Amino acid sequence: MAHMSPEEFRKQGHAAIDWIADYWTGLDELPVLSQVAPGAVRRSLPASPPETAEPFDALLADLDELVVPGLTHWQHPRFFAYFPANSSPAAILGDLVSSGIGAQGMIWATSPAVTEIEQVVVDWLAQALGLPEQFRLTDYGRGGGVIQDTASTATFTALLAALHAASDGTARESGVGARKWAVYGSSQAHSSLVKAAMMAGLGAESVRSVEVDPVTQAMDVTSFERLLADDIDDGWTPLFVQAAVGTTSTGAIDDVQAIAEAIDGVGAWLHVDAAWAGVAAVCPEHRDRLLSGVHLADSIVTNPHKWLLTTFDCSVLWVRDRSTLIDALTITPEYLRNPASESGAVVDYRDWHPQLGRRFRAMKLWAVLRTYGLEGLRAHIRDGVDLAAYVEELVADDERLELVTARSLSLVVFRHVGGDEPTLSAMHRLNASGVAYLSHTVVEGRAAMRLAVGSWRTTRADIDTTWAELQRAL
Amino acid sequence: MAHMSPEEFRKQGHAAIDWIADYWTGLDELPVLSQVAPGAVRRSLPASPPETAEPFDALLADLDELVVPGLTHWQHPRFFAYFPANSSPAAILGDLVSSGIGAQGMIWATSPAVTEIEQVVVDWLAQALGLPEQFRLTDYGRGGGVIQDTASTATFTALLAALHAASDGTARESGVGARKWAVYGSSQAHSSLVKAAMMAGLGAESVRSVEVDPVTQAMDVTSFERLLADDIDDGWTPLFVQAAVGTTSTGAIDDVQAIAEAIDGVGAWLHVDAAWAGVAAVCPEHRDRLLSGVHLADSIVTNPHKWLLTTFDCSVLWVRDRSTLIDALTITPEYLRNPASESGAVVDYRDWHPQLGRRFRAMKLWAVLRTYGLEGLRAHIRDGVDLAAYVEELVADDERLELVTARSLSLVVFRHVGGDEPTLSAMHRLNASGVAYLSHTVVEGRAAMRLAVGSWRTTRADIDTTWAELQRAL
Repeated sequence: MAHMSPEEFRKQGHAAIDWIADYWTGLDELPVLSQVAPGAVRRSLPASPPETAEPFDALLADLDELVVPGLTHWQHPRFFAYFPANSSPAAILGDLVSSGIGAQGMIWATSPAVTEIEQVVVDWLAQALGLPEQFRLTDYGRGGGVIQDTASTATFTALLAALHAASDGTARESGVGARKWAVYGSSQAHSSLVKAAMMAGLGAESVRSVEVDPVTQAMDVTSFERLLADDIDDGWTPLFVQAAVGTTSTGAIDDVQAIAEAIDGVGAWLHVDAAWAGVAAVCPEHRDRLLSGVHLADSIVTNPHKWLLTTFDCSVLWVRDRSTLIDALTITPEYLRNPASESGAVVDYRDWHPQLGRRFRAMKLWAVLRTYGLEGLRAHIRDGVDLAAYVEELVADDERLELVTARSLSLVVFRHVGGDEPTLSAMHRLNASGVAYLSHTVVEGRAAMRLAVGSWRTTRADIDTTWAELQRAL
Repeated sequence: MAHMSPEEFRKQGHAAIDWIADYWTGLDELPVLSQVAPGAVRRSLPASPPETAEPFDALLADLDELVVPGLTHWQHPRFFAYFPANSSPAAILGDLVSSGIGAQGMIWATSPAVTEIEQVVVDWLAQALGLPEQFRLTDYGRGGGVIQDTASTATFTALLAALHAASDGTARESGVGARKWAVYGSSQAHSSLVKAAMMAGLGAESVRSVEVDPVTQAMDVTSFERLLADDIDDGWTPLFVQAAVGTTSTGAIDDVQAIAEAIDGVGAWLHVDAAWAGVAAVCPEHRDRLLSGVHLADSIVTNPHKWLLTTFDCSVLWVRDRSTLIDALTITPEYLRNPASESGAVVDYRDWHPQLGRRFRAMKLWAVLRTYGLEGLRAHIRDGVDLAAYVEELVADDERLELVTARSLSLVVFRHVGGDEPTLSAMHRLNASGVAYLSHTVVEGRAAMRLAVGSWRTTRADIDTTWAELQRAL
């Protein structure tokens, strides 16, 4: 049997750490976007698993040859596509410790520290972002936060809580039935909203796509009010409204306050999707813009695994009323009954999300919050915003280019004034060069490039290098 | 700003590896079950996040003092509760590398190696377990496997695919509506089946709980046939049948072949929940029992993160017809469109589960399959089964104890002949001693103790130590 001895684990573990350190050190020299053809990586591996054990070194040795060429390097300093999924040394090591402990936090009793450290760090993060106290778990009443895997799951979970509340508890027993439930988001809402409605049994048709302002790309609240009134007249029950604080396409920020006022008295659940932008509220200067009206929301999600240095996966969902969420999802088979749960003195996080089993994810967020401190996190966010402002200047200085929407935090959306073809051609040439990686979107029917800064390794020199290559590609 | 330099990362990374090695080396001396009171860990931490950065050492130093006493040690050699969630050196290091790479595998194009290595390792695992070829992704037609987080999610995903198929694609658009969909599992089916039905909008009442044989605790297929016929007469549409291969309570194994024959022509989706027991099929001697009839199933799930040495989370779902699953879940916003996806030549795993973002989880399973080899994995499973057989003998040798059900692989379920009170008292005393940790269940209305072997660190001496303490507790 090939179990590693403690000595062998130390040796191989140090080698794995060194591999990562070397990988990062060499990242700048690698093409950001993988150029492999479909099937190439797959065909480079044996068709069947090995019968006998290989040393771990053999896997490490294969990484550079077989794996790295097939990677698009999300930790590369010139990765500007989609949104960042930035990792950091502290988070990696925090998560490593979590793997070593290997505890299951499905309920408090199965490893109390897993639950309680999560309670603490989600409260810390709420404080760090300046969220309203209603979302705090500890000593502030009825709310609370939980670490989930992704914002997709968080949105789905919030939708299930909304259904539970709106159906007076009948949906979890009898199903959603034929009632005409309506779910609202802008045309720019994340695709996970439709997916959530599909998964919850409501169907994609339950999702009403609200028009956006053509300039800001934020929800047109007047249109929303009109749609809402029409739907109510037509017998629909408004169930769930998602306000986007930072859309995926352009970083647009819906007016949460106005949306909340529009549904005052309607009884719909207000969910704020701040998956990418929310963490920027760690800087007080962004709070007016990011958190205005959030005190009126029922739930909010933001992802430390995007722009806050916490290795995927780490998405934090806060709710105003945890009992609704728990009541929507709890099931207790005999083998999970225990005195601590029955005392009501503890949190059992398995009732806060679809899954039962759960990893000690709080460890990596704890590591990030402690080893950066709020000062370090603010500096990181400000670096990203400053670099994006520099990109904005570069766009303004090139008459072939124009901004499509105003810069949103660290996201710049721009295009070639000549239209879609030169815009997309330039982006594809830049990406194919390996120098940088941008992704595209379509805004008001016209193609655009997105440049989202987020890595802690990105410097002004990386922007200059990227820009020089873009000039060649234009 | 407190970003670690590569040198600092090496130093702190080696320290984290060493902490884990030391933690494991000292595990035998720690009480398995944490004895902390609710709130103790939480109150030991500051109420607010730190303003300034701390070195990573400070966190490592806190682990022993603040975290370890609050842990129930799932990697302890005398952890016998629930099912194991065993970690292993190889998996930990594989997952560490995944963190270092920090790639997002939501679609093939966002990092091709993440997807293709997953394709390979789930096919390898299917071969390792001797699964029918219909579940293979590569070169075998219409099936395929995917790594998910938990079996709860896998069951939910399979249910959504079933709904898509049974509704001719209308459910994802129009919702589940008022149609009387019926979901079947035995009274011993995992609680995630009811949770899946709730989340899918069908409601808990859609789940029919089929009687089990009082001796084997496996589904009574005659009762199932009767229930099915009555339901069809009453206007229910049989949608989804879950066969359990290894129930959580007693490790009971439903007759998949007989269940499949019972629904022949009915059109319901047959899902096999082999979350715990499935990985034991790596040993050919268990395949007749574990895989009989599985060739008739539409989907099967097993969790390498339980008994196959792969650090949580790693649950593998295979389906017979991947297109149904993909069609049930796919949504493509503009910013994810790309030529590779549109060519049809690649797999985009984000369409195989509820989440969009996904971690490079294949790395840890790849590490386990390579560094153990099939020989090593078989030896590991056989060790667990042999140790449980030894426990079975010890039960037989003590006239105060009796088996409640026949041993299932590495799970032994037994009780005090004197009834519930002495059974549970003895278990609680044993657990409170810190020497070992068992969990309880209720079988046919009577309390029982469960002893599930699974850690690669458990030896015959650990069983003896546990048994000596149990003798004192009886």
